[in-house]
Amino acid sequence: MVQDHYKPNRSAIVGIGSTDYSTESGRSVLSLAVECCRKAVEDAGLQAHEVDGVLTFNAGDSVSAEAVANSLGLPELNYVMEWYAGGFAPSALVQLAGMLTATGTCKSVLIFRAMNGRSGYRLGGTDWSFKADGMWQYRMPYGYLTYPQTMAMWCRRHMIQYGTTSEQLASIAINQRKNALFNEKAMMKKSISLDDYFNSKIIVEPFRVLDLCLETDGGCALLVTSAERSEDCRRKPVFIKAAAYVGGPGIGSDWADFFLWDDLTENFTVSLGKKLYRQAGLTPDDIDVAQIYDCFTHTVILGLEGLGFCKKGEGGSFAASGETALSGTIPVNTGGGMLSEAYIHGMNVVAEAAVQLRGMGNDRQVQHATHAIVTSGAWQAGSGMILTNEKGT
Amino acid sequence: MVQDHYKPNRSAIVGIGSTDYSTESGRSVLSLAVECCRKAVEDAGLQAHEVDGVLTFNAGDSVSAEAVANSLGLPELNYVMEWYAGGFAPSALVQLAGMLTATGTCKSVLIFRAMNGRSGYRLGGTDWSFKADGMWQYRMPYGYLTYPQTMAMWCRRHMIQYGTTSEQLASIAINQRKNALFNEKAMMKKSISLDDYFNSKIIVEPFRVLDLCLETDGGCALLVTSAERSEDCRRKPVFIKAAAYVGGPGIGSDWADFFLWDDLTENFTVSLGKKLYRQAGLTPDDIDVAQIYDCFTHTVILGLEGLGFCKKGEGGSFAASGETALSGTIPVNTGGGMLSEAYIHGMNVVAEAAVQLRGMGNDRQVQHATHAIVTSGAWQAGSGMILTNEKGT
Repeated sequence: MVQDHYKPNRSAIVGIGSTDYSTESGRSVLSLAVECCRKAVEDAGLQAHEVDGVLTFNAGDSVSAEAVANSLGLPELNYVMEWYAGGFAPSALVQLAGMLTATGTCKSVLIFRAMNGRSGYRLGGTDWSFKADGMWQYRMPYGYLTYPQTMAMWCRRHMIQYGTTSEQLASIAINQRKNALFNEKAMMKKSISLDDYFNSKIIVEPFRVLDLCLETDGGCALLVTSAERSEDCRRKPVFIKAAAYVGGPGIGSDWADFFLWDDLTENFTVSLGKKLYRQAGLTPDDIDVAQIYDCFTHTVILGLEGLGFCKKGEGGSFAASGETALSGTIPVNTGGGMLSEAYIHGMNVVAEAAVQLRGMGNDRQVQHATHAIVTSGAWQAGSGMILTNEKGT
Repeated sequence: MVQDHYKPNRSAIVGIGSTDYSTESGRSVLSLAVECCRKAVEDAGLQAHEVDGVLTFNAGDSVSAEAVANSLGLPELNYVMEWYAGGFAPSALVQLAGMLTATGTCKSVLIFRAMNGRSGYRLGGTDWSFKADGMWQYRMPYGYLTYPQTMAMWCRRHMIQYGTTSEQLASIAINQRKNALFNEKAMMKKSISLDDYFNSKIIVEPFRVLDLCLETDGGCALLVTSAERSEDCRRKPVFIKAAAYVGGPGIGSDWADFFLWDDLTENFTVSLGKKLYRQAGLTPDDIDVAQIYDCFTHTVILGLEGLGFCKKGEGGSFAASGETALSGTIPVNTGGGMLSEAYIHGMNVVAEAAVQLRGMGNDRQVQHATHAIVTSGAWQAGSGMILTNEKGT
């Protein structure tokens, strides 16, 4: 029974919009959100009145979907969603937009994320308003509070268990920086060497500055419509061939025991990959380009393994082998990713997958890219998609 | 083209669960949430491992969907949602659960709302953390901050324009209290008279205490599955015949200009009714029972008018006529509603619609109830459904 699966290719990404990415926008988050949404609608060749759904997620700095809809002048909304969520949300919201448009609940749906992530609320910091209750009370006495601290434990476990090295982590940062130099939107404009990596400041062992994603002021939006309507849009549609959210018993009370998971050498991408490949009827060999949520270099390793591009434990050496470069067998984070393009909480990671499948990657374009895989999230829960520019049957 | 509409009867409410409703639960919100969810699953005759989606909304006191899923021991999650939303959310989340199960993304989906709404965070108060920015900065200097203050302006406008009276508002409170006396779950156990109404304390003119919803500690959950799977459940399925969210240009920046809307004598139910009746192919005459979101007596008037049970401006006299009583032509808020059963942010309002369509309303049961309409929300945005116990074609 096909009802086990989200029906493929029933909806498509037809618009991409983004603001400039900077460290100090000097503008409100609403202004950033409206700009990227407006651009996504224009990019699709649609009018505002054809948009009747707006979705966003809002852990940290944010602005409401209704405020953005109002500022865009949308005459009617048939669905909105403001998910109290972080980087695990982008693909799941595109999935929701796919359902809304495939079922005819909405005509077309904007998904946006906007934030003054550097000049405003900084997600990487310790000032989480919720940190004093739930599981956080047990971490707080040890000063064990930030994302980098948490993921450092995971990374260290991988190094101990599989011999993953700092040189391998460096290769991920260096590769993505190379890609960023071909992306005019990228915040990072200078190439980096292995020496630069080892000379960069240690934030929390084993992570150096260059292992961590950027902090960005900016906004990024996607517009999704049904496959049927996508034919009338300006750009080549990017169809949602598979989409899934993964969660489960590893996810604990208030998200806070993510460091107590059974196996810190893998993350949600193991389950995600299985779901996506089954839905799409594809294998890792069929994927031409991968955009892997990279809040840290290390999460790219977990993604490469989880999605089946290499064996478990071999993500470090695989990344260092050159196979994930633009010229490799599976180019990864081709726009520079969150390490070198911008940190828009994973929205820009999804957008880059669509850019590649449109063939609009300019000097960073992966030739003959037909299937892209994209992930959202770093730990036990997350979402992802397989996108394609091939129209389904 | 039927794609304009959410396809009817593809999914159904198959489980209802709730905790005791009290003013001091003495328990955590997580505990309340888990209890009502567990009961909803048991009520459906299902096992926890058959639930793979959990949705909630969380303005104010709340607990995460993942925490609840974990506590229930759900082995796998295929979707979660934590909407940063208030009373406009319940029907829209049931709608989402309908999409998730109809598309096969999830097998069955829990929707819950749990809160220590009296002993913990009190939504009716002035301590909204967001009130110092956005549009709130313009209200704050006037002390114009709370929900009762806001809706009082709307109610007053209706009284000025249409001659709606305090006696008519009283009739709504009295009618729902009558219904509550037949509902063993209801917090309110004593009947009230017109004198009681006029002797009750004025909170903000024209509202007295008895015009305002309760404040409740408790939880309420629903379980939704596909129409196909619903056949194997213990109870009579309650099918989602129509479901819609309404928003639009009336909704302003950060939800705060809801008092600046063009016409304060009507709310979202005008647009909602049109959408629902069109989807369902029904008219108000086909509806047997109505559950109208009643954070205030006055919102029942707006709902009666918006949903077409009477003409615009005549909601007050219609409510006072007896037609909305259990013995009337369109029984309203048959369980006592949020005025007299409990305030679970509208979840219990939706649950009562399902109770009636199961024929499990005991002494408050509306005979031969086949179609119920339910609304979620009070102002310019909201959601709603038409539910039925008739299997679709």
